[in-house]
Amino acid sequence: MTTRTDPVTILPASECWDLLAGVALGRLVTSVDGHPEIFPVNFAVQNRTVLFRTAEGTKLVSAMINNDVLFEADDHNVAEGWSVIVKGRAGTLRTDDEIAEAERAQLLPWTGTVKQHYVRIKPVSVTGRRFAFGGA
Amino acid sequence: MTTRTDPVTILPASECWDLLAGVALGRLVTSVDGHPEIFPVNFAVQNRTVLFRTAEGTKLVSAMINNDVLFEADDHNVAEGWSVIVKGRAGTLRTDDEIAEAERAQLLPWTGTVKQHYVRIKPVSVTGRRFAFGGA
Repeated sequence: MTTRTDPVTILPASECWDLLAGVALGRLVTSVDGHPEIFPVNFAVQNRTVLFRTAEGTKLVSAMINNDVLFEADDHNVAEGWSVIVKGRAGTLRTDDEIAEAERAQLLPWTGTVKQHYVRIKPVSVTGRRFAFGGA
Repeated sequence: MTTRTDPVTILPASECWDLLAGVALGRLVTSVDGHPEIFPVNFAVQNRTVLFRTAEGTKLVSAMINNDVLFEADDHNVAEGWSVIVKGRAGTLRTDDEIAEAERAQLLPWTGTVKQHYVRIKPVSVTGRRFAFGGA
């Protein structure tokens, strides 16, 4: 007799943040004119917030006006995977202090030619699951 | 003098489908009670549609009632990445013929214990971008 492991495990918040900190690409989901849109973003975790940059004047910046957002990141191999979803409020960083703090995060440069804004997502909730592939 | 490569390249549809076919995990975005939700799903490409399975009675199945969906998949390394977004209509497969066709796709088993539905997304539009990391 074998014990089946549950195919889905709910993760504690601390593990969700650790997992998020270990990947560099996530996806922002927000509504634009009432329709969901998804944007892949290069991000960093800083003090249990999600930080990313976006070029000035883009669709993504206007999406930030609707500041209730979802952010998702995941990773997997052939046997198992995980996914973390942050629900939160996104805001563009404006003050010198805010920007200086963001500069200390480990964000990959995106492009060097375009003026960029920092956006920080402050979490309202964080949920994470670990899941196993494979049949019975 | 060097020629700068454009940091973002728009991809033709054929390349979008090729890229999608090379990864196994994507994300479905749909509205639930007017709020965007995101669900990671294991998927396969079949005849320029996106195919995945989901367990009966889940939030994801009810989300399919709102059948205008987004589907996103991406991949990246330290130097560059790509993202493809499919906008389309999702429908649960019902007939024996539909299910038999879906069984021929290369879908990883998810779990062996739960009755599952096949869902197929028929595309309305497909957009893809390749992007480079790195400063000027």
